[in-house]
Amino acid sequence: MQGFAHRHTVRAAMAWLDAQLHALDVDSVDLAAAAGRVLASPIVSAVDVPGFDRATMDGYAVIAASTEGATPYNRMSLTVLGNAFAGTPFTGTVGHREAVRIMTGAPIPAGCDAVLPAESADLEGPFGRGHYDVLAIGEVSPGKNVGRRGEDVVAGTTLLTAGRRLRPQDVGVLSSIGLPRVPVVRQPRVRLVITGNELLPSGSPPHDFGITDANGPMLAALAARDGGLVDFPGLVRDDREAIRAALLADVDVVLVSGGSSVGIEDLAPMLLAEEGELAVHGIAMRPSSPTGMGRIGHRLVFLLPGNPVSALCAYDFFAGRAIRVLGGRSPEWPYRSFRGSLRRKISSPIGRLDYARVRITAGQVEPLSVSGASVLTSTTRADGFVIVPDDSEGFAAGSEIDVWLYA
Amino acid sequence: MQGFAHRHTVRAAMAWLDAQLHALDVDSVDLAAAAGRVLASPIVSAVDVPGFDRATMDGYAVIAASTEGATPYNRMSLTVLGNAFAGTPFTGTVGHREAVRIMTGAPIPAGCDAVLPAESADLEGPFGRGHYDVLAIGEVSPGKNVGRRGEDVVAGTTLLTAGRRLRPQDVGVLSSIGLPRVPVVRQPRVRLVITGNELLPSGSPPHDFGITDANGPMLAALAARDGGLVDFPGLVRDDREAIRAALLADVDVVLVSGGSSVGIEDLAPMLLAEEGELAVHGIAMRPSSPTGMGRIGHRLVFLLPGNPVSALCAYDFFAGRAIRVLGGRSPEWPYRSFRGSLRRKISSPIGRLDYARVRITAGQVEPLSVSGASVLTSTTRADGFVIVPDDSEGFAAGSEIDVWLYA
Repeated sequence: MQGFAHRHTVRAAMAWLDAQLHALDVDSVDLAAAAGRVLASPIVSAVDVPGFDRATMDGYAVIAASTEGATPYNRMSLTVLGNAFAGTPFTGTVGHREAVRIMTGAPIPAGCDAVLPAESADLEGPFGRGHYDVLAIGEVSPGKNVGRRGEDVVAGTTLLTAGRRLRPQDVGVLSSIGLPRVPVVRQPRVRLVITGNELLPSGSPPHDFGITDANGPMLAALAARDGGLVDFPGLVRDDREAIRAALLADVDVVLVSGGSSVGIEDLAPMLLAEEGELAVHGIAMRPSSPTGMGRIGHRLVFLLPGNPVSALCAYDFFAGRAIRVLGGRSPEWPYRSFRGSLRRKISSPIGRLDYARVRITAGQVEPLSVSGASVLTSTTRADGFVIVPDDSEGFAAGSEIDVWLYA
Repeated sequence: MQGFAHRHTVRAAMAWLDAQLHALDVDSVDLAAAAGRVLASPIVSAVDVPGFDRATMDGYAVIAASTEGATPYNRMSLTVLGNAFAGTPFTGTVGHREAVRIMTGAPIPAGCDAVLPAESADLEGPFGRGHYDVLAIGEVSPGKNVGRRGEDVVAGTTLLTAGRRLRPQDVGVLSSIGLPRVPVVRQPRVRLVITGNELLPSGSPPHDFGITDANGPMLAALAARDGGLVDFPGLVRDDREAIRAALLADVDVVLVSGGSSVGIEDLAPMLLAEEGELAVHGIAMRPSSPTGMGRIGHRLVFLLPGNPVSALCAYDFFAGRAIRVLGGRSPEWPYRSFRGSLRRKISSPIGRLDYARVRITAGQVEPLSVSGASVLTSTTRADGFVIVPDDSEGFAAGSEIDVWLYA
């Protein structure tokens, strides 16, 4: 009765999982909510940005030839016809030896091909409404200080490709072409099914023989971090029909915590096998060995151990990967890596992958001595974790190893 | 009239800024909203977790001495008095040669000091309600397969210190001690003041001489990324009183975009000097040279250039730092760094810091040739940026340099 007859390797479990994963269908969101979301289709601009030639400096819009030969010792008079401001263009046409006072960003008036910077002109005439003269004390060449129409975006250009996770500046560019809504990959809906008759709901002080739920709030935060839309309606009793109903919720991903092993109290694996497919059950890793995965129709179901360190590890290896990929993100961990020298050896048997919590002290990697899967504080005291692959017996003291830093 | 008489070094501007920055006051949030927030005070547990000794395996709770000498060839009979489940303890007391069938997580019955694993017992008696016998076929030592009260958290322990940015597992630990709400650093309220009479609101297609606002949505996404609560009620006309009113909004940080330079159209610096202090105006960097910073009462005010690349760069150097620190986060960029070899040289004059957009191709760092501060697509084509300090003339082709990767 006890123990798994066979444990899947992490590699085999991951291979099954990866074969199930593809980005979900398309959703449309307001541009203001698009940062961090993943583009579902490429974005091609219908417009040029800017849509007109404009000044890139404050100065005088001119025909460049009007300034030919101007120096501080050969000042050339230009008649200023008016002003061009950003948003308030000069509407007339400018001829030889004429100019329009222009501000950065203002449209270049008709006839002009350059902007003489303000510092290359001496103000002569009275500053006011009528025409007045300035003296060019330097030359400009055609095109100088002019930002060309389409300088930023040319109509017809593919600006961003499908699969792009939108950065703040991407949102700026999408705004600049006038896009009001953005086609993005739909966020996976994630139902938490936190079981365990000993559990008290988060927010209740633990008392008597009750344990206040840690996995629900932790898994909710993890799934939200990875782009899931979390539904956590409350704890579920260790009751066949209550768990069965929760497994059948209309979501993309079901995360069950607790009762994932092979004991008679472990209802979830049996129910998953009854209602759908229990594809993986028991994985050669520590912690998280009693992890299961399967499907019920379109739902991916993850059976996570109730021990919170095991739940975290199983989430990180499998469920988080699924939520990220369903939402269009990279399967990779959202953790930075750090390479450092190991202070004390880490041992691990061949045939099992180990997830070892470590601290970084003075640039060195120090394994935490506590290894109990129920000691969640080992993951809050740790700076990150080290993976010992199943074909390794561990790492000797002094080895250079990669640490994944919790974030 | 044109140009800054004096430009601050980035170092001097940053020194002024850092002297203004401290984490804001405390706020209290539901545990379910605490992930990613920054603890405002240390958390000391009032309880032990777990609050009782419990089984770490399925099996039989016993007095360890009852199994002394048990082997497959010397099976020892134990009388099973009942069951202990997680959440449903066995309420009697167990004596010598007695046992209670126990499930992982269940409280250890009174009198017992160990759990004999199910695989170390042969089931003898009828499985049912009454007493029945099992045969121990192995020994257990005292304490074996028992998770001690306080194994995870001991009452009185400081679990997390002030300043900690809460990870998902931290939220789990806080839940396990029964905390319903968490004291966190208040999020800075950030008002966006996007000026420019040429601007059309985000969502409108650009037409005629209008430019659709890119900075508003970009800055909103940046400030939200850095933990700000963004208020962006719409574009502000280039009008003294409209800008003045916006500068006086009751917020922690005001981000003004546009009109930040020294032209007659540049109202924001004058208004900031009138209403408060314009402490920094003009910074020796490219882009973003026409950046200003100051205060009005408790508000930090950032005058960002209207050119979107300049706005992004000035945000990243100064405003983002402020928002992160006010919210209790690290001042550091939320960007990963990458070290690679430069394919083509980057030149930059001494006395000016440069922010150069680059791509990573085949592990090499390639500067983008477009350098216009109005070309926001240069930051979407780029993978990140390289900083050339003001005491450097740049980097030769083939140098190993650090790139900050946009995220």
